Amino acid sequence: MESVSVIKKNQIFSRNDIDKMEKGFKVNFINSLSGFKSANLIGTQSEEGINNLCIVSSVFHLGSSPPLFGMIIRPHTVTRDTIENIQATGQYTINHVNTHIITAAHQTSARYDKHVNEFDETNLSETFTQNCKAPYVEEANIKMGLQLCEIKHLDINTTELVIGEVIEVVTDQDLNLEDGYLDIEKAETACVSGLDSYHQTQRIDRFSYAKPGKDIKSIW
Amino acid sequence: MESVSVIKKNQIFSRNDIDKMEKGFKVNFINSLSGFKSANLIGTQSEEGINNLCIVSSVFHLGSSPPLFGMIIRPHTVTRDTIENIQATGQYTINHVNTHIITAAHQTSARYDKHVNEFDETNLSETFTQNCKAPYVEEANIKMGLQLCEIKHLDINTTELVIGEVIEVVTDQDLNLEDGYLDIEKAETACVSGLDSYHQTQRIDRFSYAKPGKDIKSIW
Repeated sequence: MESVSVIKKNQIFSRNDIDKMEKGFKVNFINSLSGFKSANLIGTQSEEGINNLCIVSSVFHLGSSPPLFGMIIRPHTVTRDTIENIQATGQYTINHVNTHIITAAHQTSARYDKHVNEFDETNLSETFTQNCKAPYVEEANIKMGLQLCEIKHLDINTTELVIGEVIEVVTDQDLNLEDGYLDIEKAETACVSGLDSYHQTQRIDRFSYAKPGKDIKSIW
Repeated sequence: MESVSVIKKNQIFSRNDIDKMEKGFKVNFINSLSGFKSANLIGTQSEEGINNLCIVSSVFHLGSSPPLFGMIIRPHTVTRDTIENIQATGQYTINHVNTHIITAAHQTSARYDKHVNEFDETNLSETFTQNCKAPYVEEANIKMGLQLCEIKHLDINTTELVIGEVIEVVTDQDLNLEDGYLDIEKAETACVSGLDSYHQTQRIDRFSYAKPGKDIKSIW
């Protein structure tokens, strides 16, 4: 399958085609299929006080009351330190990657030794608040502190679903907040496709609440 | 909290501030915090043969070998029919929302009666393959058929994590596929922020695999 360079219209990849793909090729392919992904830096601190920073593209909204977010961690990869620190301290931060820090953010995906502080290696700046033991990324325009709620082991592929509750939200830019919607595009939040492609966004529209038989209106 | 219109630099929202927000305001706020989200239409069919279509912004990559995707479903909302159909038939489709179909895609979030086919209501077109019982969205340039693996009930907020395995991938546009990375920006895949804001993307760069002490290179 390595030689495929253009997919033709109406082409079907069967599961058998996918299973036969070379490993790296398959990882790129499957990672592209869910659509655009959030780009967040996870800040943690070890019991020994060493700060850790790691980019994660799997943070997702789980609920608003209480405010909960989930993320998928692969314990045998570069995110191992992250999950160990979360288990040890119970806290972590989620920091939006913005378009100005994508290179530094991507660099945090390198397999640094457990005793290396990725903030030092990437020139991103640590900052703290009174309420959270984990470090924030100063350059991130939107950041939040979380308290670990639970870690669910997913037997199906030995990944961990980390669920945390928001303890505070910190913004580092003047941002509109009209009906609660926070303009993350104005905050220059980036998104990711596949494993390594970074994108900025351009709003097409915001839409009214949809109802059967009623036309949708622009609310932007 | 309803009156906040501009967040100032270095403003902190405590958990107490968040808990005091009006319900709709809070839902918009919390939904904005995880960053950009994928925009996918989930196609299902009921046991009675009625097709269903529903937009979901919670699809995420869970693993590549085997190819697994997760999504969060709230069983007491508009996605109730979706999860009932998945439980009944064991299959569903994930279809990328592209920038040309965002209005129709958003309309599928209306609370239609169980016996209404959202394809008819939105003028999106049903299409089928031999391998999947669930309907695809013809207008979607990237789509995949999934077999249900498991539904994990998340006690923490009574949501359901639906995990499925890819059975096939269908593309409806000529797309580059060099190292496995599928150019979803060329496919005009949209992304979502908050509950109702739709965005197109512009690639900034693709980066090489990160290694400690090694500079990241552009690979685009």
